[in-house]
Formats: sequence, structure tokens, C-alpha cells
Amino acid sequence: MRLVTVRSGAGTRAGRVEGDSVVLLGARDLNELLEADDWRTLAGAAGETVPLDMTALAPVVPRPPKIICLGLNYMRHIREMGHEVPDHPTIFAKYTSSLIGPRDEIQMPLVSERMDWEVELAAVIGSPGRNIPIGSALDHVAGYTIMNDISARDWQRRTTQFLQGKTFEHSTPVGPWLVTADELPPGGSGLAVRCEVDGVEMQSDTTAELIFPVAETIAYLSQIFTLVPGDLIATGTPDGVGAGRTPPVFLQPGQTVRTSIEGIGELLNVCSPAH
Amino acid sequence: MRLVTVRSGAGTRAGRVEGDSVVLLGARDLNELLEADDWRTLAGAAGETVPLDMTALAPVVPRPPKIICLGLNYMRHIREMGHEVPDHPTIFAKYTSSLIGPRDEIQMPLVSERMDWEVELAAVIGSPGRNIPIGSALDHVAGYTIMNDISARDWQRRTTQFLQGKTFEHSTPVGPWLVTADELPPGGSGLAVRCEVDGVEMQSDTTAELIFPVAETIAYLSQIFTLVPGDLIATGTPDGVGAGRTPPVFLQPGQTVRTSIEGIGELLNVCSPAH
Repeated sequence: MRLVTVRSGAGTRAGRVEGDSVVLLGARDLNELLEADDWRTLAGAAGETVPLDMTALAPVVPRPPKIICLGLNYMRHIREMGHEVPDHPTIFAKYTSSLIGPRDEIQMPLVSERMDWEVELAAVIGSPGRNIPIGSALDHVAGYTIMNDISARDWQRRTTQFLQGKTFEHSTPVGPWLVTADELPPGGSGLAVRCEVDGVEMQSDTTAELIFPVAETIAYLSQIFTLVPGDLIATGTPDGVGAGRTPPVFLQPGQTVRTSIEGIGELLNVCSPAH
Repeated sequence: MRLVTVRSGAGTRAGRVEGDSVVLLGARDLNELLEADDWRTLAGAAGETVPLDMTALAPVVPRPPKIICLGLNYMRHIREMGHEVPDHPTIFAKYTSSLIGPRDEIQMPLVSERMDWEVELAAVIGSPGRNIPIGSALDHVAGYTIMNDISARDWQRRTTQFLQGKTFEHSTPVGPWLVTADELPPGGSGLAVRCEVDGVEMQSDTTAELIFPVAETIAYLSQIFTLVPGDLIATGTPDGVGAGRTPPVFLQPGQTVRTSIEGIGELLNVCSPAH
């Protein structure tokens, strides 16, 4: 199943994509849907059908209890950024206010001149767990989606902590839908990930290269806190980011960022004027 | 006014402390209360009165849209931790699941042997704003409270990013109440901050020593995102943490942490058995 959150009037509604249509479901968004124990049944239910309008899609999980981002999880990206190979996952957060839908504009801040791209596979939690063994970790995944972890490199590097460069308002596209885990390889592994800017390929790799794959990441994180339905875990980005190029290249207002993952789909986001 | 979130049956309720009583207010918690444009009027309303039971207090804002923590914001703490003096505020996040009430147990994780204390003044946002000038920044503060930014130093230092050591489940006491800004010095400045473990003073300083005071912090953060009602901003901790001592000292199960700020009150939290 491909599950979405669609904007509808002043609010949102969970839905299931069927071809060019969306079947509206009995929850206000995917977060509310996934909080139900029987979310798979609810997600498969019949309902009113509306045409699929990609521009009406909200961030696929608009209110994640936690947005957990991995840094430094592909070897060539670690090298291009000049970091050491880690013994443990590097994690940082984003705030919900950074999320945008799969066709929304990336808000380019006047205060940054170094907005950069980062295609990432993201897992969405479907059932809660603490101290989860690696062997059963994937049972906790509802499905997978795409995030572009757009990063203001100048702000990211002002201090030792990445957060302030990672959470500019309305900068992080996520979606277009959640593809349920049963329709993808275990752990979302072996999928081609790709990012293009104005049609030029900038990143191309496969999720087979993750240093900490999804199951290991879930087991690790669940030692710290209970993972709960709707938590969004972004698995890090491969090499090819703008900051790693010689000379560095950054996003400009008006450019189009296309972020795609095999078996899931694509995000297509225009960079707004700076404001 | 001293405003609280009290646990009540299966849920919570906003309240106003009057002596030894709590006047229950028409909102399920302080987050909901602060989202109202006229929250000051609602907070001053009459209502059913119940005895004040400190053990029934929830984290004062149990659902902050953002928990924004400053690191390295007192000079002597920067020196004890071996860091450089920063040009910009260092910020990191916590997840909501880390918050506990002012008399709750600090959950001691089996996987960490280096749980440490950090008394902090925290500001709670009352009215929204983006790109806020320093001169009007304090108008956006509803009031002040106390946080102990309990930190698993071993996890904090596993990677470059602090987050994983800062957000263990049920580890961060916050409260006991929000003291509205009109009852404290501007910016919560000049207040004595103090942390004791089993009656032994570990930290003692004043918020006059903040490198980035509250107004500057709000102006800075609001360049990145819109600050919204209920956002919780912890302003960093002074020196005297366990990791900065020779030899280092860490919290042990059964110990009592008393965290106090002049003009606000105190948190009193026992460290649970490790589990």
C-alpha cells in the first residue's frame, strides 16, 4: 500500500493511493492512522475516492513524535565531509516545523548562502518498542518514504552541533507516500537513491551501502527511548552533496530538486526566492 | 502567576497555583493554554480548586512543539568541558519523551554509567514570532521554569552530536511551574541557580552569567524557525557538572537531585534503580 496525508480544506486526511486516485481513510493524517493498533486494517478500508493531486500532499507524517536523523552513514559521504568512520550511529533531530510536502517549495532563508541537498531513505515506525532486538527490529517498521535532509551548511558548521543547520522552517521535503514494508526489500535495503538539481545528477548510490542499516539503527535507538508509531527515522545520505564538491555548489532560488528512491517514488521541490 | 500542568485521572489539566491550592483552568495542559491568544486572561480565571500535590505535577509544558537546549552558555562550564568560547549559540534538541515532572523519578538506564546533572533556567514561549528583534524578544516569553538537562555523558560523547546523551526516556525534570515573566527580572537574569545531589552542592551560579541571554537567544533562534507558544528553551548550565570534576562523579540509583532557581522554586527527583 502507498499511504499519504492529503491536505483537505483547513485540515488534512489520511489516504491510500490507488492508481490516480486517493481513497480517503478514517484518520486526520498518517500519524493518527499509525497510532491505531489495527492500522493495517484501517489503511486497507474502502472510502470516498478523490483524484490524486500531488501538490495537495502534506509531509507524509506531518506530526512525528520524533524526527531522528542519522549523519555519516555512507562511507564515501564520510570521506567527502572529512569525518572519521564512526563506531556508533551519529544522530540529530529536526523539528516538525521543518517538514514540507513532496511538491512544496523549499523555503530558502535570506540568512544562509549554503543550502545543500541530502537524499535519504526514511523509515516510519508502525508499532512501539523499547530495547528492540535486531532480529525483530524490522517488525516495528510500518514502511518507507523519502526525505531530503536539506542542510544550511553555514549554520550547520557554526558550532559543533548540526541542529541549527538542519531545521530551517519549511525546508525538508518528505514523502510522497509511505510504501508499506511488505512491498520493499527487508530494511529498504538495496534501493537506488538519487538526487538531481535542475536535471543534473548530484547523488547516486544504493541503500545497500548503509553503515548502520535500518534494523541495527532501530535496535540502537530503542536503547535510548521507546520508538512509537509515526516516528520518522532518516538513514543518512550518500556522497555527492554540494559541500563535498570542488568547488562547493549550493542551491539557488528557482532551482528544482528531484529526490528519488527506487520502489518508492520521487520528491520534486522548487527552491523559493530567498526570504 | 504560577502555572502548572497537573495529572488528573488518565489525563492532565492546566492549573494556577494559589498558596497550597491549584485552581483548575479550562485547558488540558499548559501547552493548550498558551496556544490561546488571551492565555493571560484564561490563566487568571476562577475555577474549581484542589489541594496542591507536588507529586501530581506533570512536566510543566508536557508537549512542547520544540525543546531547544543551549550548550556552552556559561564561561566556567565551557572551560571545565574543554571547549572554545563560541561565536554563536550551540543548540541541540530533546524529544518530548525525555520529560518528567518535578517530583518524578529520573529513569536511570542500565546502558549508561555516566548520568550527570545540569541545572538550567528555561524560558517558555507565549506568543509566536519569526525574525524577532532583540529589543522585543522578551515580549514573546510567557514565563520561566527550571529544567535539569540530565545527560548520559558516555552516550553524549560517542559521536560529535550530543542528542543521544541528552534524550534518554523519562530523564529530564522540568517545572515545577511556569512563573509568568512579569514576576521575575527581565530575561530571568540575575537569578541564583543551584543543583545539589544528596544535599551536597554541586552547581551554584547566577543567570547573570549567561553568554547568550534569553533575548539574544530568542532573536537568534527565530532566524531559523517561528517560535510558537509552548516552545521550551533551556539556557544551558553553569560549571560544577559531574563530568567536569576531578575525578568525575556521576549519579547513582537512589540519589536525590535537587535543582533550584531563585524566584521560581525547585525540582526534587530521585534516581530510579537502573533498568
